[in-house]
Amino acid sequence: MVRVVGINGSPRKYGNTFKLLKVALKVAEAEGAETELVHLIDYDIKPCIGCLCDDQKACRYPCVIEDDMKELYDLVLESNGLIIATPVYWFSPSGIVKNFIDRLTALENMVVVDGVSWVEGKVAGVITVGNDSGVVHVLATLYATLNGMGFAIPPWAMAYYSQEGNVLADEKATLAAANVGRAVALMCKHVKHLERKWYDAELKDELAALARAVEDEAREVERSELAKRKKIFEKALEKAFATDG
Amino acid sequence: MVRVVGINGSPRKYGNTFKLLKVALKVAEAEGAETELVHLIDYDIKPCIGCLCDDQKACRYPCVIEDDMKELYDLVLESNGLIIATPVYWFSPSGIVKNFIDRLTALENMVVVDGVSWVEGKVAGVITVGNDSGVVHVLATLYATLNGMGFAIPPWAMAYYSQEGNVLADEKATLAAANVGRAVALMCKHVKHLERKWYDAELKDELAALARAVEDEAREVERSELAKRKKIFEKALEKAFATDG
Amino acid sequence: MVRVVGINGSPRKYGNTFKLLKVALKVAEAEGAETELVHLIDYDIKPCIGCLCDDQKACRYPCVIEDDMKELYDLVLESNGLIIATPVYWFSPSGIVKNFIDRLTALENMVVVDGVSWVEGKVAGVITVGNDSGVVHVLATLYATLNGMGFAIPPWAMAYYSQEGNVLADEKATLAAANVGRAVALMCKHVKHLERKWYDAELKDELAALARAVEDEAREVERSELAKRKKIFEKALEKAFATDG
Amino acid sequence: MVRVVGINGSPRKYGNTFKLLKVALKVAEAEGAETELVHLIDYDIKPCIGCLCDDQKACRYPCVIEDDMKELYDLVLESNGLIIATPVYWFSPSGIVKNFIDRLTALENMVVVDGVSWVEGKVAGVITVGNDSGVVHVLATLYATLNGMGFAIPPWAMAYYSQEGNVLADEKATLAAANVGRAVALMCKHVKHLERKWYDAELKDELAALARAVEDEAREVERSELAKRKKIFEKALEKAFATDG
Repeated sequence: MVRVVGINGSPRKYGNTFKLLKVALKVAEAEGAETELVHLIDYDIKPCIGCLCDDQKACRYPCVIEDDMKELYDLVLESNGLIIATPVYWFSPSGIVKNFIDRLTALENMVVVDGVSWVEGKVAGVITVGNDSGVVHVLATLYATLNGMGFAIPPWAMAYYSQEGNVLADEKATLAAANVGRAVALMCKHVKHLERKWYDAELKDELAALARAVEDEAREVERSELAKRKKIFEKALEKAFATDG
Repeated sequence: MVRVVGINGSPRKYGNTFKLLKVALKVAEAEGAETELVHLIDYDIKPCIGCLCDDQKACRYPCVIEDDMKELYDLVLESNGLIIATPVYWFSPSGIVKNFIDRLTALENMVVVDGVSWVEGKVAGVITVGNDSGVVHVLATLYATLNGMGFAIPPWAMAYYSQEGNVLADEKATLAAANVGRAVALMCKHVKHLERKWYDAELKDELAALARAVEDEAREVERSELAKRKKIFEKALEKAFATDG
Repeated sequence: MVRVVGINGSPRKYGNTFKLLKVALKVAEAEGAETELVHLIDYDIKPCIGCLCDDQKACRYPCVIEDDMKELYDLVLESNGLIIATPVYWFSPSGIVKNFIDRLTALENMVVVDGVSWVEGKVAGVITVGNDSGVVHVLATLYATLNGMGFAIPPWAMAYYSQEGNVLADEKATLAAANVGRAVALMCKHVKHLERKWYDAELKDELAALARAVEDEAREVERSELAKRKKIFEKALEKAFATDG
Repeated sequence: MVRVVGINGSPRKYGNTFKLLKVALKVAEAEGAETELVHLIDYDIKPCIGCLCDDQKACRYPCVIEDDMKELYDLVLESNGLIIATPVYWFSPSGIVKNFIDRLTALENMVVVDGVSWVEGKVAGVITVGNDSGVVHVLATLYATLNGMGFAIPPWAMAYYSQEGNVLADEKATLAAANVGRAVALMCKHVKHLERKWYDAELKDELAALARAVEDEAREVERSELAKRKKIFEKALEKAFATDG
């Protein structure tokens, strides 16, 4: 059994963001996952105070800030997949989503504290909804963020909608959301056993040998390439002088 | 056996972009993958002419443009994983990488022609190298792009370096590149059998029922939520009048 | 006399974000501006509740939410220029900066209420500071955001730093920050008289005639271009059949 | 008199990208500017070969590559404003636009060669057109790019359209494009005399004194702030031990 948590980052608990997220979760259920939908607006999530800039190891689970994030950390830790659905405010996630993400650092930064990110190998999907535009900009940012924390991203883990009106009347967006639910659940099943087993810090021992081999190859290529490039420059130089004269 | 192709998007065949890519491929090999490294600068890749804006189905494999992209299409089709390494020119991939990506549309757009993207379920990793900055901006764009074509992205499929000097002297970046090779090879093994089997167009048949159920739930929440919101507005209004008077 | 307000979005009131911002403000002063530096962490800024999705005109100044944003609205309205300095948390501004930006909508959305954005023609600069990367991604997002609200952006209105250590020891970043202060103050002087006078809604009356003229020109070009494109397709088709046979 | 050049980055010389650009230029003319529209697809623009990574000063005007970019460099140098209109291919500008931008480096990098970017103080506007989405992602990237080269950006220098169908039937997008033309022409008039006079390298002489003053202030704040932070940690630690015991 896999568990998929849906995070609704819209303060409007009944809007298009909620609707696409709910569609995704229902399909994840049909695919065999247990699901839960969380409205971030119901939680008091204080801003991150940036402890790790003072001391790299100060940022860890449990976070020093006392608020409702405590419950959300547990939800994330107990899940195999996370679908973040956010409205697009000024080409970015809403402020509450951003606070949620900043605070997730306490799980990711365990890589510094005990050698492994506590979300590594979990699976992520993203849903973005705007009245206008910016949906892909947010999506791209969240992909880089979640993958940089250690989440895997299944094919087409994205659904977006940037028009006014009820999103459920838009087949394209609704179908995309349905497939987000499906892909996240499917990927959870295939990589669940690999949680916290992706990143291999021991590759460090092989880096010196690797680097040497690559450096040798690069040097050899460089020699012949730089000769070619020199010719291009000389030709341009000659021409410049000819013009001057 | 899985196959991972590395795409070097730098015109400098001996620079930092090449070096990190080569490290990744060597580790992918150690993980059991066959690999091949391609220098895009060696290929004549003409710009996409945007056929699909004239006719959605006009963009398909084989592409109407005659150039060296033909060979690269074959390489991509025969691979299970793709690692794109690009220099960062003005906070974006180099122009040759962009032309390569635009032209990949001929494989992805097969979803319109025969119902499935021909790169769906392949695995992607990204390496970005700049002298200065923008490495994450490019990474985020390429993640959205590749995932939007149907590629899966394993945990930490990214390595970047934004300083001057030989990247191989930077352990952090080199270790990240090594793990990109590892993660891409590992994910290839786990999802290879799912190529072209992720996206489920038949979910379309269930959308109407799904939409109805979600709409009902949203309406119910909306009723109570809007009442709460109305009170906030009324209170603000009252206060505004009180101030005016 | 022009007024430039600096917004420090870092919870650490003594860190690199603060330092670069202070450098910028000092140079703006030398250029003749009055300045003020605000630490967002000292203000209670609640998340935006997205009123405008319920009713486009519901979002207006004064905002319905009662908190310290009231003071910040006044500061922004009385300024000619704004320099936003933010730490980079997960390739995005900190959550408090995002809440500040979301809430600025109450000034910008006056365009719907009384025909003009209340920040139109003010001048913006951006400073981004990370330990690692993403500084340009944030910068690009804030540029689109601030310009989309109506702010002008002078040449090189950006400074960024993505390494560890004291930023003041890095001449390049410090010089960039100094020039942000200079450029913002300089631009304020040159466009101050144009505040709320840039966007011309009355161009609407000329759109029909404009559209007709442009449409005619496009049609003419289309005729000859499509003929050329058709030939490319026919040639590709012929070749495909020749290969099949 | 000011001069505004419009760059059409779409291979389709009759499509929506062209149409919005033409609207912008016509309004710029009504505002008193001379204008010229260039279709990039008519020019042979080879990819940048990254000379400056081999030698910082090797990248300069005239560029060593011999192709049609020569004419475009002249057009840019003789203009006061530039409006770049690009189709959105995979959340990015088209490959030909990217090659054009990469090659503009030869003008910008004159900052290294003779102390000033040759496009500094020119004015930029951006138009992005897609069938689907990503228009803001491209816009944000181009803003960071153009401003990083030294272009000024007037209020609302952006127009975008991400739907199918004739853009001229969409009043919102067409009006936005008209205002791009107006704002670019207007800003050109106000800052034309400042071309190549924005960035002040001589601020370098004042950096040491500035840095010292800022450092002193930061240290003072740090002392009191770190004491407060220490208390938060101690409280969290105590609680953690209490729980353990």
